[in-house]
Amino acid sequence: MKNSARIDPRQAAGEKAAHLAKDGMVVGLGTGTTAAWAIEELGRRVASGLDILGVPTSYQSAFLAAECGITLTTLDEHPVLDIDIDGADQIAGFIAIKGGGGAHTQEKIVASSSKEFIVVVDESKCAKVLDHPVPLEVLPFARRLVEKQIQKLGGKAELRLGIKKYGPVISDNGNFIMDVDFGEINDPVSLGEKLSQCTGVVEHGIFTKIDAVYIGRKDGSVEIQEA
Amino acid sequence: MKNSARIDPRQAAGEKAAHLAKDGMVVGLGTGTTAAWAIEELGRRVASGLDILGVPTSYQSAFLAAECGITLTTLDEHPVLDIDIDGADQIAGFIAIKGGGGAHTQEKIVASSSKEFIVVVDESKCAKVLDHPVPLEVLPFARRLVEKQIQKLGGKAELRLGIKKYGPVISDNGNFIMDVDFGEINDPVSLGEKLSQCTGVVEHGIFTKIDAVYIGRKDGSVEIQEA
Repeated sequence: MKNSARIDPRQAAGEKAAHLAKDGMVVGLGTGTTAAWAIEELGRRVASGLDILGVPTSYQSAFLAAECGITLTTLDEHPVLDIDIDGADQIAGFIAIKGGGGAHTQEKIVASSSKEFIVVVDESKCAKVLDHPVPLEVLPFARRLVEKQIQKLGGKAELRLGIKKYGPVISDNGNFIMDVDFGEINDPVSLGEKLSQCTGVVEHGIFTKIDAVYIGRKDGSVEIQEA
Repeated sequence: MKNSARIDPRQAAGEKAAHLAKDGMVVGLGTGTTAAWAIEELGRRVASGLDILGVPTSYQSAFLAAECGITLTTLDEHPVLDIDIDGADQIAGFIAIKGGGGAHTQEKIVASSSKEFIVVVDESKCAKVLDHPVPLEVLPFARRLVEKQIQKLGGKAELRLGIKKYGPVISDNGNFIMDVDFGEINDPVSLGEKLSQCTGVVEHGIFTKIDAVYIGRKDGSVEIQEA
């Protein structure tokens, strides 16, 4: 029998991490379902008096934060954030693959601007070896060239197509997204460096600088791993 | 006394390189004053029966090519070019710094898509050691983060400001351009790799895969160096 009171593991992780935010902090607001739980909890805390500013990583997180009553700011006004809370598509140790929501470029800019980068996931996202396709944000002009370069790196690139929109998905920056299957990724740091050097790739979805991971379990508990 | 018949060294180099194009070729059309001489010469050759297709590297080269009667195509239709002819801001051996015109991202995509990449310059662009500021195309959202990363790499970044437009120059891709002074660049390949890994940098202006350089001299001669 399903226990309807049982908390979603993503909710457990997101809400727990939201309690890292303290008065006066500038907080990065991640994109996706697990990060959304964190934003909603931050919103409830703001309603109870928490004094923070948020930097969104996408239109999605900006819209949700505004709905939740979180005052937004920008990296121009606050180039250094105190903490950034974001989800991941897959995580192994302290390296994650992100970009399932097409927002990994802004997510990486915000994460790289933050003193602490906290990843929130449910346990289904945890892997021993990363093998999730790596999202790439790609300049439309460079599509064919990127495919060629990716082939040389041993990956199989697929242009992400839209739903509710004909043709390719367009990122918040106006670019294409490709999902690249590399099979098992034994050296994600080195692969990330090579992907950064592909002409036409704006940003790849391998994140290597994670300070802590909040893992939501099915029983509603949250395991915290610190780097 | 100035000899008014004397040919501009950039014109000499550009026009000479334009004669590398043969019937049936797909030709990359560079951006800037020296590349413009090549495009104009290609236009004259097309008027005399040369049968080529051109891939522009900017709005500037697309507009000029159209004026010159060169039929344009895209990297979607022709992902592999036969030859690409483009200028440079500075060149040492077979490594160049490009992007003074803010078009280095598309220029690099086209150059990387071409079997042969020919650089056309006048001798004033030739240096023993590269020390020209390196143009970066930068996501607007990442401006402050890029400045911080560049500082760590020992460079001094300056946001390129517009003339005939308030605020920053906006690239053909909708991004900012920063000019980064590194002083003398002793290892441009390694610097390029590091710049590629800066989050928020779409592309940098260091070009390392050059097949030949056409150098226009003041006496109107053109020296050809092949890699």
